[in-house]
Parts: sequence; C-alpha cells; structure tokens
Amino acid sequence: MFRYERPVRFADVDAARMVFFGRFCDYCHDALEALFEQIDGGYPRLTMVRDVGVPTVHIEFDFKAPLRYGDVAIIEVEVLRIGEHSITFRHTVKRKADGVVSAVARHVVVSARISHTETLPVPGDMRALLEQHLVRR
Amino acid sequence: MFRYERPVRFADVDAARMVFFGRFCDYCHDALEALFEQIDGGYPRLTMVRDVGVPTVHIEFDFKAPLRYGDVAIIEVEVLRIGEHSITFRHTVKRKADGVVSAVARHVVVSARISHTETLPVPGDMRALLEQHLVRR
Amino acid sequence: MFRYERPVRFADVDAARMVFFGRFCDYCHDALEALFEQIDGGYPRLTMVRDVGVPTVHIEFDFKAPLRYGDVAIIEVEVLRIGEHSITFRHTVKRKADGVVSAVARHVVVSARISHTETLPVPGDMRALLEQHLVRR
Amino acid sequence: MFRYERPVRFADVDAARMVFFGRFCDYCHDALEALFEQIDGGYPRLTMVRDVGVPTVHIEFDFKAPLRYGDVAIIEVEVLRIGEHSITFRHTVKRKADGVVSAVARHVVVSARISHTETLPVPGDMRALLEQHLVRR
Repeated sequence: MFRYERPVRFADVDAARMVFFGRFCDYCHDALEALFEQIDGGYPRLTMVRDVGVPTVHIEFDFKAPLRYGDVAIIEVEVLRIGEHSITFRHTVKRKADGVVSAVARHVVVSARISHTETLPVPGDMRALLEQHLVRR
Repeated sequence: MFRYERPVRFADVDAARMVFFGRFCDYCHDALEALFEQIDGGYPRLTMVRDVGVPTVHIEFDFKAPLRYGDVAIIEVEVLRIGEHSITFRHTVKRKADGVVSAVARHVVVSARISHTETLPVPGDMRALLEQHLVRR
Repeated sequence: MFRYERPVRFADVDAARMVFFGRFCDYCHDALEALFEQIDGGYPRLTMVRDVGVPTVHIEFDFKAPLRYGDVAIIEVEVLRIGEHSITFRHTVKRKADGVVSAVARHVVVSARISHTETLPVPGDMRALLEQHLVRR
Repeated sequence: MFRYERPVRFADVDAARMVFFGRFCDYCHDALEALFEQIDGGYPRLTMVRDVGVPTVHIEFDFKAPLRYGDVAIIEVEVLRIGEHSITFRHTVKRKADGVVSAVARHVVVSARISHTETLPVPGDMRALLEQHLVRR
C-alpha cells in the first residue's frame, strides 16, 4: 500500500462547498505520480523520454463522504492486479482527521506507447515497483 | 437524449496531449448543468436558492478513444433510471468530426439538501425534465 | 471588440464561493480560442499543424467585483496593439445580468514557434483578424 | 522569504506542453495556503471559521521561461508591503533543477469579510506572520 497525503486546496471545492467529484481523479493521479517517483526519473522520464504511459481505460468511484476545505486527504494506493498489459489499482481516499473513507476507486490502466496509443507489456521496473503494493488474497 | 457540444480547450489536455481523464467529469457535469437550464433558474437556482443538489455517489467511465486538442466533444446525456431519491445517467462522449465514441459513463447521483447532505425526493420539476430523456427499454 | 459569453460553472468557484481568480485566465483564454476560430482551422490548426502559438509573456488583472455561481460571464476582447512579434489584448470580464465589470486584464502575448519557443512575426491571417478588433485611439 | 515546492503535474500543461499560464495562479495560491498554515488552523480556519479572506484585487505576471512536465517548481513568496487593509506579495517561480526564473508575480490582496466582501484591517496574527517575510529596502 502506497500512502499519499495532500490538503484540500481552496479552489478544489465547488459551489456546494465540497471537493468536486472530478477533482478526485486529480487526487488519485497525483498519488500515482508520487508512487512512480520511485522509478528512475519518475513518471516524467517514463512518459517524456521512454514514451511509455499508463492511460486510463476504466475508472469507477464510489463516493461515501464529502471532503471539504480544511480537510487533508489521504490517498491509499493498492495494486489489485498486474496483467501482461494492464494494471488495476484501488484508491481509497480518506479524511486524515478522522479516517473516514470519502471515496473508493477501481482504476484500470494500460501500459502503452504514448506517441502511438498502442499497448505494450508493462515495463520491468514498473512491474517490480507495483508488485510491492500488490494486495495478496 | 440531451446533446451538449463543447470544443476541447487548450488547457484540457495533459502531458500526453490527450484530454486528461479527470476532465471528462467536467465535460459531463457541464452537460448536466446545460440540461438543468431547462428548470426555472437552472442548476444555480436549484442549488443556491432551493438548497437542492445532485451530488455524485457513483461514476464509472470506460475510455475507448482519446480526445485531442482540435476535437469537438459531443456529450449525449441519457437517463437510465429515476428512483425515489436517485437518478442514473449514461453519458456518451463522442468526437464530433467522426462520431467515434471516446468514453461512456454511468453516473449515479442522489437528490439531496446541499446544506445538510441529506437525501430528499427528486423534485417534481426535475423529475418531469429528466423523464423526457429517459431511455425506454 | 470580440464578445464571448460563458456561464460560471459549478466547479469554477472556490471555498469563498466566488470564481477563483486563476479561473479568469481560463475565461480569457477561452475567449481568445473562440476569436481564433475565425482563422482557418482555428487555434488548434495554428498550434498543432502550423506550429505557431501565442504564449503569454505578461498578464495583469484588476479585480473589481466577484463572479458567483449563477452569473454568466461576458468577456470582451479588444486589441490594444499589434507589434512585429507581439500583441496586446484588453479583456473586460462583465456580469451579463447587470453589466457590472468584474475584472479587466491587459494581456501581452508573443507570436512564437511552439516547438522551439522562438518568436516569429505575427502571421498575416492572424494580423488581419486582430486588426478588426483593434482599438483606435 | 517563504519557499514552497511542488512538482509540475501531468495535467498542469497545455497543448503546447508547457504549464498553462493560468496554472501559475494556482501555484502561487498553493504557496500562500502553505504559508498561512503557520496561523492557527491555517487558511481554512481563517476563511471558514473566522470569515476572513484575502481576495485578490490585482495580480500581474511576467513570464520568462516555460515550466514543463518533469520540472519541479519553487515558489518564493515575499511580502513587499503590509497596509492597513491590503498586502502586496511578490512571487518568484523558479525551476528547481537550474534555478531559472520562470515567472514573477506582483500580487495585491485585501483583507476582507468573506460573507460580505467588505474590507477589514489585516488581523494581528496574519500581520505578525507576514512581517517575517517582509522585504526590507
């Protein structure tokens, strides 16, 4: 499990004063970018130099409790499955103060050449990193 | 079916030069706000004056083809179900030029008091509007 | 003067329930993208095919009155100056309902090769378009 | 001088693959929110509980060098002036790797009741904090 923390920002909330549901995608992607920092050069080198990305093919969120301005979000990233070309994550977004779960996401990405949008096998260093966060069942 | 059109904006894409997957939430919400303009005062009056909102409790996206800068997005909003307190939408995001489907979302919202985050029955005028877009099976 | 209209969106406001000041940059850029639609292929073709962009080198905003959810923003784009390599715009952001000025921006961009970030003379078709919106003094 | 660091995120760049100029407002506001964490309860308590905010009345940016994906941004916040009701900041945004200045902002905010948008004297604890970052000339 990889744990990422970020405060809710002033402009993250919407007119209902709750973090806009679309912002949860940003929060989860921020967490993934932080996780990938453990690969040499991080996600920037992976995408910009090695031309490898992990575009999202499926994401689903269950929203359980709102995040508001003043909350700090904890994003817990777990890897549910590493396939030949795809990876399934589970992101659990919690409020830091009380541990209440705000949202849970199942997130499927594919390993792909960014310039051609064609899938390619999950690179070895990415696989090795993600296996450390694989949920054993 | 309600149809909403918007061009991909210069800042909607990410470092892979595709519309960031989180932006699809904004696109679909923009479409819903446009749909709700047909209620008196639109979504602003509903939320700010009548204190009624439709917070998202579940959303799932299947991404099928990228949107890039220069594309115009068509968002087709259909209503799959209107319950006592909840509404299920299907959003189909297409590229205008060739009609290719970029993403499909299933989106469940609840009718709720915004100030108390408590559910309340779907208001009559909202129900009447949404029934016009209900998919009959 | 080029006039562009857009409603304030649900997620455009911040925790103070006013449109976040940074969003005014998006509003003004949206207006410019709409203006450039009058060039063949619009800003997408200009940037993606012709490799010409207009990166911002200076922008300043005076904020005079807030925009809130429910307001519709009018962005009036005027051209103050067209130089050899640079263009100065004035954007006046108004509330549609009462015409109150919310913000005024002075915005200086340069004509540049996007791939090399080097300036180049303002292209002829862009110059011809912008001269139609030039403020005569 | 207060120093705040954040990596450029995957979705911060635009179709020209540079951080969109409007995102610099977010970067600078993030830095201010981090600075205000040194007041009890931070900016959230200030705005949400004490009903005091610092809305922007003027901001101007000079952009000197692009930020790209892979860059880490350093935002240096200095206080140029603390008036009875207003505060003037200078934000210098640098690339961490080479120290190159990407943008410089002059940013004027007023101390105000958020619910009434009326100015009020800069609170004592805010003044005390900001005086530590005041540029002596």
